[in-house]
Amino acid sequence: MLGEPGGTGAGALLSILRDGQARTRAELMQLTGLARSTVSQRLDALLDQRWIIPAQDAISSGGRPAVAFAFNQGARVVLTADLGATHTRVAVTDLAAGILAERTADLPIERGPEATLGWLVETFTDLLAEAGHGLDEVCGVGVGLPGPVEHGTGRPINPPIMPGWDAFPVPAWLSERLGVPVLADNDVNIMALGEHWAARPEADHLIFVKIGTGIGCGIITERRLHRGAQGAAGDIGHIRVPSTDDVVCRCGNIGCLEAVAGGGALAGRLREAGEDAADSRGVVRLVRAGNPHAVRLIRQAGREVGEVLTSIVNFFNPAVIVIGGDIAEAGEHVLAGMREVIYSRSLPLATQHLDIRASELGDRAGVTGAAVMVIEHVLAPTAVDQTVA
Amino acid sequence: MLGEPGGTGAGALLSILRDGQARTRAELMQLTGLARSTVSQRLDALLDQRWIIPAQDAISSGGRPAVAFAFNQGARVVLTADLGATHTRVAVTDLAAGILAERTADLPIERGPEATLGWLVETFTDLLAEAGHGLDEVCGVGVGLPGPVEHGTGRPINPPIMPGWDAFPVPAWLSERLGVPVLADNDVNIMALGEHWAARPEADHLIFVKIGTGIGCGIITERRLHRGAQGAAGDIGHIRVPSTDDVVCRCGNIGCLEAVAGGGALAGRLREAGEDAADSRGVVRLVRAGNPHAVRLIRQAGREVGEVLTSIVNFFNPAVIVIGGDIAEAGEHVLAGMREVIYSRSLPLATQHLDIRASELGDRAGVTGAAVMVIEHVLAPTAVDQTVA
Repeated sequence: MLGEPGGTGAGALLSILRDGQARTRAELMQLTGLARSTVSQRLDALLDQRWIIPAQDAISSGGRPAVAFAFNQGARVVLTADLGATHTRVAVTDLAAGILAERTADLPIERGPEATLGWLVETFTDLLAEAGHGLDEVCGVGVGLPGPVEHGTGRPINPPIMPGWDAFPVPAWLSERLGVPVLADNDVNIMALGEHWAARPEADHLIFVKIGTGIGCGIITERRLHRGAQGAAGDIGHIRVPSTDDVVCRCGNIGCLEAVAGGGALAGRLREAGEDAADSRGVVRLVRAGNPHAVRLIRQAGREVGEVLTSIVNFFNPAVIVIGGDIAEAGEHVLAGMREVIYSRSLPLATQHLDIRASELGDRAGVTGAAVMVIEHVLAPTAVDQTVA
Repeated sequence: MLGEPGGTGAGALLSILRDGQARTRAELMQLTGLARSTVSQRLDALLDQRWIIPAQDAISSGGRPAVAFAFNQGARVVLTADLGATHTRVAVTDLAAGILAERTADLPIERGPEATLGWLVETFTDLLAEAGHGLDEVCGVGVGLPGPVEHGTGRPINPPIMPGWDAFPVPAWLSERLGVPVLADNDVNIMALGEHWAARPEADHLIFVKIGTGIGCGIITERRLHRGAQGAAGDIGHIRVPSTDDVVCRCGNIGCLEAVAGGGALAGRLREAGEDAADSRGVVRLVRAGNPHAVRLIRQAGREVGEVLTSIVNFFNPAVIVIGGDIAEAGEHVLAGMREVIYSRSLPLATQHLDIRASELGDRAGVTGAAVMVIEHVLAPTAVDQTVA
């Protein structure tokens, strides 16, 4: 398909410099095909707004040394939040998604949007001060929400565990109070962005599977989020597991992955067996304590997730599968069960170089991914062109 | 993600004009941000090579009428071929993938690459003459092959039904004889491109499912082919069907979709029941003749394909699913079985606007898609920049 025709503004220069390498005026003229006067004018605007900084002198061919320019990853900060069902993590990051300050809190999402987001604005203010930055240095806010989010507006859409949040304009509400662009997305999508950035940024096709109380996945293809036609992509928790068909799921169907291998289902089965497991974290605690019943169950859950992923590997041929969420904290037992099934069942060509691994970022996948989402948005060439006059 | 910085050559102008709308010099200056002299120079080069033609005078605001320029879809022709196991279709198209001349022939692919491709070169020459064009007007050749093809080189890789073709450099061999760029890809990928172009060019996410002797799919996302990390994406014939697990597949696993619902499997079961069905075409003939056994089998095959697509709909959330291949010619029976399962089993949000339809192009999906592949390649801005000096 054809690319976009444009890309001749300051954003084009910044998108070249973002790889971290410093370049001279002459190099930038050559790379963009723009005239010297145009390049100079745009570099001045970028310097003026601190998006770039003069770097060490580049090698000169005999004459006076040419000044090189580099991307300034400290130019702005990003505010991010990963809102879970009961627990929230908030962070301030730089333009390389590095965490400058962070805080976690027990905050039930069912308190509703205004109480939750009001608390968030206060916490952002505290954290900014702690990191030694002002609101004028914030280039954007990224928020992960534990439910379906409409792309474009960032509103939760019929979120099952977020009473009072349906269609609440999260980005608009926050943007009005903070005066900067705000982006919101589903937490699993955001975690996929974070894991891709942290673990395998060069991978074109990555799937991040979150196994917590429920099960869902985030899909990266050609290094971008695949959301699907209705933004519903990645909802693998209700795919039927071939080997089991007697379990009824909350969705009304039988044999759904979530109903057999989700943290809620596993905790329920352990309680039936007389074990103390209130939720998915309880399951992981038992596994870590070496409880044989819990270990057996979680390995079987890994196989069942593997059965579903086998189909996805044949269909999608990802380079990397990253496993995260509470249940993934049970570590090698889950991965071993998954690998067992995927390698025996998927096509050899598709598994030849397939990398199946545990989350690199753990609890920080959400806040890191939310920062990545904001950075990609704010530093897109057209966005830079709009802000750098 | 960030876009490419460049795109300021003749290719950028052509990519704007390719939508079919004529534009004046002033409009093109505004759209690209390029100087008048630059636009004029690049328009001259494009006119010189006939990529564009002067269109009717545009509306002028009082002064002398401004000349507008339009894309010339007759500027070049494309040669395309869809090579099947036993049957081949060859065509000459314009730059809108419209067929100007075509021919079909019985040509067993097992005759090997040199005999097959030698015949192809002769047939291309004949067809070009028939369409009233010369080799100097050909901008590229597109070839579909019935097996896995390495992206980038266009070589078949361990193709199961193409003896003698493994690693044969199809594009290089043809390009040496025809003197133009040659692209080759797997037939299902190419058919997906053709169906997307013909039926739903505006759809971001489309899946084309070919049900013939085997079963495979081509995946379009963000309007481009998704090939996966090893180019193995779309191999859904060996996904396990949840409801059946007693059939052994040629791949060694049990319950593979192809082993229960492929044309070869269906023909085999009909023969066991005493019916006359040599292959998938025989199955379709019986269905069309109203044979109740064949109708029952093919509807059940539709349900089984539907079971696998249900997982894919939840995972990928496509806007459109197009069904093609021999078995799809049995029409509504297959579609009805598929729809029955997909709508009862996939998530409501993902099926709300899902369009499940039969192939629009039928036997021509391959040659049309091969033309689309070549046109997108030849008219990519960077490619145009290289040829229009």
